Amino acid sequence: MKNYKMIIQYEGGRYNGWQRQGNTPNTIQEKFENVLFRMTGQKTEIFASGRTDAGVHALAQTANFKCNTDMSCDEIMSYINRYLPEDIAVLSIEEVNERFHSRLNAKSKTYEYSICAVKKPDVFTRRTVYYIDKYPDIDKMRKASQKLLGTHDFKGFSSVGKTKKSTVRTINSIEITENGSYINIRINGNGFLYNMIRIISGTILEIGLGKAEDNCIDFIFKTNKREYAGTTLPPKGLKLAEVLY
Amino acid sequence: MKNYKMIIQYEGGRYNGWQRQGNTPNTIQEKFENVLFRMTGQKTEIFASGRTDAGVHALAQTANFKCNTDMSCDEIMSYINRYLPEDIAVLSIEEVNERFHSRLNAKSKTYEYSICAVKKPDVFTRRTVYYIDKYPDIDKMRKASQKLLGTHDFKGFSSVGKTKKSTVRTINSIEITENGSYINIRINGNGFLYNMIRIISGTILEIGLGKAEDNCIDFIFKTNKREYAGTTLPPKGLKLAEVLY
Repeated sequence: MKNYKMIIQYEGGRYNGWQRQGNTPNTIQEKFENVLFRMTGQKTEIFASGRTDAGVHALAQTANFKCNTDMSCDEIMSYINRYLPEDIAVLSIEEVNERFHSRLNAKSKTYEYSICAVKKPDVFTRRTVYYIDKYPDIDKMRKASQKLLGTHDFKGFSSVGKTKKSTVRTINSIEITENGSYINIRINGNGFLYNMIRIISGTILEIGLGKAEDNCIDFIFKTNKREYAGTTLPPKGLKLAEVLY
Repeated sequence: MKNYKMIIQYEGGRYNGWQRQGNTPNTIQEKFENVLFRMTGQKTEIFASGRTDAGVHALAQTANFKCNTDMSCDEIMSYINRYLPEDIAVLSIEEVNERFHSRLNAKSKTYEYSICAVKKPDVFTRRTVYYIDKYPDIDKMRKASQKLLGTHDFKGFSSVGKTKKSTVRTINSIEITENGSYINIRINGNGFLYNMIRIISGTILEIGLGKAEDNCIDFIFKTNKREYAGTTLPPKGLKLAEVLY
């Protein structure tokens, strides 16, 4: 069996997230597997670097699948793109070692959360940006974000319930950039808990807006309690930007 | 009666153009007039700088309407934005002299046509960009575009049928810029004939792709025949960018 690694892109607004699950219709995984079944005539599973939640986008998700085919990579890419819906696309494809696995081999992932502070959402970016009506203090946000760097128990910054699994993760970098009325929070880490980026972004934003104390992050780490962290920002502002191997 | 001038924005993909016309449903003018009727209790006509065709977008269209109200401009803007669909927005509003008319007083307009040359349309810009699969020669396009500057009879670059009205227009500037795989054609002129920007963009693009002769523009001016000009590019790449008074 050949193993193919793809970089893929999707606008997640219409979908129930990446992962195929029971009877939930309209997942991105299902859209791919339907096309792969059509192409190969066989049930073919596709593995992404991680599931993205309902409504979350991907600028560059990585996924792999195995199949036997005589088609070239270009031919496979053309075939898949022809049958995918127009809000999902394969950007590139290559044959890789049969042991490569998109999720298990991922070293780190980068997510972006996009916010815009204007009176009225821009009609052209409304599907992929979270709009607020007051401009936050970016310096405060940057300063607060530095407290999140490194290895911590991020349970308080997640929607994970009781679990025996580790909730310790490492954040390598957080960059907050501005472009006009747009604010972009870019976070790289070795892995993320359920809703972790959206809660971290919500917490940093509330600090920037003066709705939360600058030192609340210390307190959340100390208590590990979700209720002390900020709101879970909506999925539409979140994009999986890059997966590193 | 007070006269209000607005800068408005819309993603035109879902609409049958700006202008309300007979029984054609779903025009942008109709969406505004419905909200104005709700706000004022009276039939209120709205005047735009010009109609945009079905599927064409506006980054900054100008429109005005007259009404009697005690509401402030901010209140009017909030009201209208609350009831407009999410792909139409008012960006700003101000009270102006009662003799101001968005169409009659417009001095010039700027349109942009956006093209992208990649294998597969970017899922995030697919609604507002025309995708092609081969990168054109930009220098050729720039050189050809200079021949369009000034005052000419643009009948050959339009879908205007037989008409007694003048088809003479003046183009003040054409700028062609590149950004990654994106190409933007920005045209300012005193007025444009039916489909004129889309046909001009199609003609320049075909010259850039080597599908049309460099000197075809001279020939179109000489003959005034539509059939010698390039294809009418699709509406989704076209945006009304600015109206000057």
